[in-house]
Amino acid sequence: MALITELQGIVGTHHVLQGADLAPFSCDFLGGYAWEPLCVVRPGSTREVAAVMRCMSQAGIAVVPVGGNTGLAGATAAEGMVMLSLARMNKVVEIRPASRVVEVEAGVVLDHLHAAVGVHGLSFPMTFGARGSCMIGGMLSTNAGGSNVVRYGNTRALCMGLEVVLADGRVLDLMNALHKDNSGYDLKDLFIGAEGTLGIITRAVLKLVPAPRAFATAMVAVPGLAEALQLLNRLQEATGRAVEAFEYMPGSFIERHLALHPGARAPFDAPHAVNIMVEIGATAMRDAEPGPDGVVPIVTYLEQVLAGLMEEGAVLDAVIARNEAERAEMWARREAAAEVMISYPHRVDTDIALPLDAVSVFLERMEQVLPQIAPGAKHIEVAHLGDGNIHYSVALAQPDTALAETITERVEDEVKRLGGSFSAEHGIGLSKKSSMARRKDPVALEVMRSIKAALDPDGLMNPGKVLP
Amino acid sequence: MALITELQGIVGTHHVLQGADLAPFSCDFLGGYAWEPLCVVRPGSTREVAAVMRCMSQAGIAVVPVGGNTGLAGATAAEGMVMLSLARMNKVVEIRPASRVVEVEAGVVLDHLHAAVGVHGLSFPMTFGARGSCMIGGMLSTNAGGSNVVRYGNTRALCMGLEVVLADGRVLDLMNALHKDNSGYDLKDLFIGAEGTLGIITRAVLKLVPAPRAFATAMVAVPGLAEALQLLNRLQEATGRAVEAFEYMPGSFIERHLALHPGARAPFDAPHAVNIMVEIGATAMRDAEPGPDGVVPIVTYLEQVLAGLMEEGAVLDAVIARNEAERAEMWARREAAAEVMISYPHRVDTDIALPLDAVSVFLERMEQVLPQIAPGAKHIEVAHLGDGNIHYSVALAQPDTALAETITERVEDEVKRLGGSFSAEHGIGLSKKSSMARRKDPVALEVMRSIKAALDPDGLMNPGKVLP
Repeated sequence: MALITELQGIVGTHHVLQGADLAPFSCDFLGGYAWEPLCVVRPGSTREVAAVMRCMSQAGIAVVPVGGNTGLAGATAAEGMVMLSLARMNKVVEIRPASRVVEVEAGVVLDHLHAAVGVHGLSFPMTFGARGSCMIGGMLSTNAGGSNVVRYGNTRALCMGLEVVLADGRVLDLMNALHKDNSGYDLKDLFIGAEGTLGIITRAVLKLVPAPRAFATAMVAVPGLAEALQLLNRLQEATGRAVEAFEYMPGSFIERHLALHPGARAPFDAPHAVNIMVEIGATAMRDAEPGPDGVVPIVTYLEQVLAGLMEEGAVLDAVIARNEAERAEMWARREAAAEVMISYPHRVDTDIALPLDAVSVFLERMEQVLPQIAPGAKHIEVAHLGDGNIHYSVALAQPDTALAETITERVEDEVKRLGGSFSAEHGIGLSKKSSMARRKDPVALEVMRSIKAALDPDGLMNPGKVLP
Repeated sequence: MALITELQGIVGTHHVLQGADLAPFSCDFLGGYAWEPLCVVRPGSTREVAAVMRCMSQAGIAVVPVGGNTGLAGATAAEGMVMLSLARMNKVVEIRPASRVVEVEAGVVLDHLHAAVGVHGLSFPMTFGARGSCMIGGMLSTNAGGSNVVRYGNTRALCMGLEVVLADGRVLDLMNALHKDNSGYDLKDLFIGAEGTLGIITRAVLKLVPAPRAFATAMVAVPGLAEALQLLNRLQEATGRAVEAFEYMPGSFIERHLALHPGARAPFDAPHAVNIMVEIGATAMRDAEPGPDGVVPIVTYLEQVLAGLMEEGAVLDAVIARNEAERAEMWARREAAAEVMISYPHRVDTDIALPLDAVSVFLERMEQVLPQIAPGAKHIEVAHLGDGNIHYSVALAQPDTALAETITERVEDEVKRLGGSFSAEHGIGLSKKSSMARRKDPVALEVMRSIKAALDPDGLMNPGKVLP
């Protein structure tokens, strides 16, 4: 095939994968989508990405960019299309410690970036389960979130500069390390979160922060979700906004986790309905130097603050991690979320966001709604409560597509009524296109379509994704 | 004129200004631009803005949105056009203290917002000289900066949701109070900083933060600008990133300020070349409760940190404000910047941004370049050093357009070489269009033009601005 030969000419023969080599590129992370790509092309530089795109543009064949392929929305499905893997563009180009910035190629794996900047006492403060394989380009294309958004924002907030190859092979140079730059439209943020439908992200400049020198991590039980928001605000004020994670696990989650891990410990002596895992990061030196008892001040301080809140009745119980093993135990419980969810085989999963003060309203409302539409169905959720992102799931007794659809729509109804979003951090891809059609402001959809048409008139960039 | 009658029908007779009432809308803040608008229309609601835009779109007449008209780039010039003032849309719609958000109409004056949220112990952490008259819509349209960007980011970083009326009167609803929302392209950030060329911002949801409970403010002399960046990083690590302002004033600035204000005090006993005004905000409660001596811990702590740095030789001298009067004295010196600049009648002004580690390189380089191209010319600058934004000005002996152009181009050459921007916080408007043509990535300009054409095909939204 002439196209394959042409691509081989650009990137080298063994960087155009075909046949059996396509296996890892033919399904998504969760196995919900499967497809057969035409081939996978692995350029080694921006220049090669541009040449590939010129070639594809002339051939009129669609291109799906792919990083670590760890997305949860089916955005890399590529039936009959060419997949463009950024994996060879994996250089941490330059770390500038004094300016707290790093320049990377799109194929850098998150874990590698963590290690590279850690040498300088710095941190790229974004992490989640897929850190060992997800790539920066994919994180930017999906505006990845996670547990530390409460302190550092989404991937978008950590990106200063971007290089993008457009559908026709032009290279858009938005690379800079500037905290202020008002020179025309903000094009960078248009490509972040666009899931590869507007162009291919090839390089980026990312912000770094001093790595916290110590952590204070605790499990805290509070009377209700409204009180949980009060707790968040009180902790932010007590620590000067040093809350790194604020994760909600209901009693049902703790129970299920214990059932799956008989050797695990319960977080508290008595079970509670509203369990929060909170982590404070000691960025300030004075919070991190161990006292004569070996305890770092941030831990002592969190203990004092929580003791005060218990006296007020704002906190029911609290346990502070006394060492790294106890901290790891707390995180292991939270990171077992996927396992806990999967233990219910027939599920309706969601990835919703709500204003912080609407989270409790939503969950209370669903307590009334769910028994009406799905009698006997069990709901289970975890939430990045510090940023209003709930993974609300409903376990069904058996597969039931119609009921699943009804539940999804009712969840979306309540979310919309409360000013929330049907898509918080996982993105749209293929999996949420129908929600996008139902729920997104129609004028916003029109504007998105006109921008898509302006930047990719032939519809070759990851077609069929995001836009309904 | 039929158009005037139609507009009067939409907004009411006395909300269409003509004749003498146009005076305050016929020139810009600095008096560098003057024009005669067709009329000024003052809608009272989003619905009225939409009706006005439908009317203008049918008539094919251009529209220039205007807030407080305090911009510095001529973006409100409107010769023969209709100006649309947001001043009547001045409601603080809702403050949600638990969620730390506020919903506002575009015509809310910054000072009013500060007062409204201050009642709740909260702060909208953006401020600058024009706070008594600038409006939120204008701040968003120009992505305003200022002295607190080092801690809180530009206006963009403080905006969660937006409502925009498009050129044809469609209303784009992006209003939300969500920390995570991955539902399609990030349209919000496209309108922020677009200077009214893509649509009219009518409402917004803004982030709030707990107001600092105390401040520690100091003047610090360091050996050089490279050491100033070290000081910034050391203070960020010492305080857990609580630096609210980090402002650079060279010895020449201090000297001129003293010459203009004979009653003012010098910051230090001996003059220094590199003077930094630093302010730490005590957000954490424990930093703000006065000790037995009446001094708040954050002040004592900053004193300790600076004393340590003096022992190392990283700091030459430091003076901490002991009370609010001394703090005000420090801020008054910095806020005299406009006056100090204007005291040189023939100036070439710039508003440039550099990577933090390139600021010292740029200024050293200009020490060599300036005497070659403008022998005897004096330069004077102030910088928001914490965010890399320098207002570098050159004072000429007499007006000299050709020399001014040469100086601007050489400054831009050096800025570009160092990865900086010719436009940091004031925007493009009319005043920087030629720099935009010369310096902006050509592909970026093409993409901006295609987006402009997609959203405003008839070119009616603030035509002639931003895009060269």
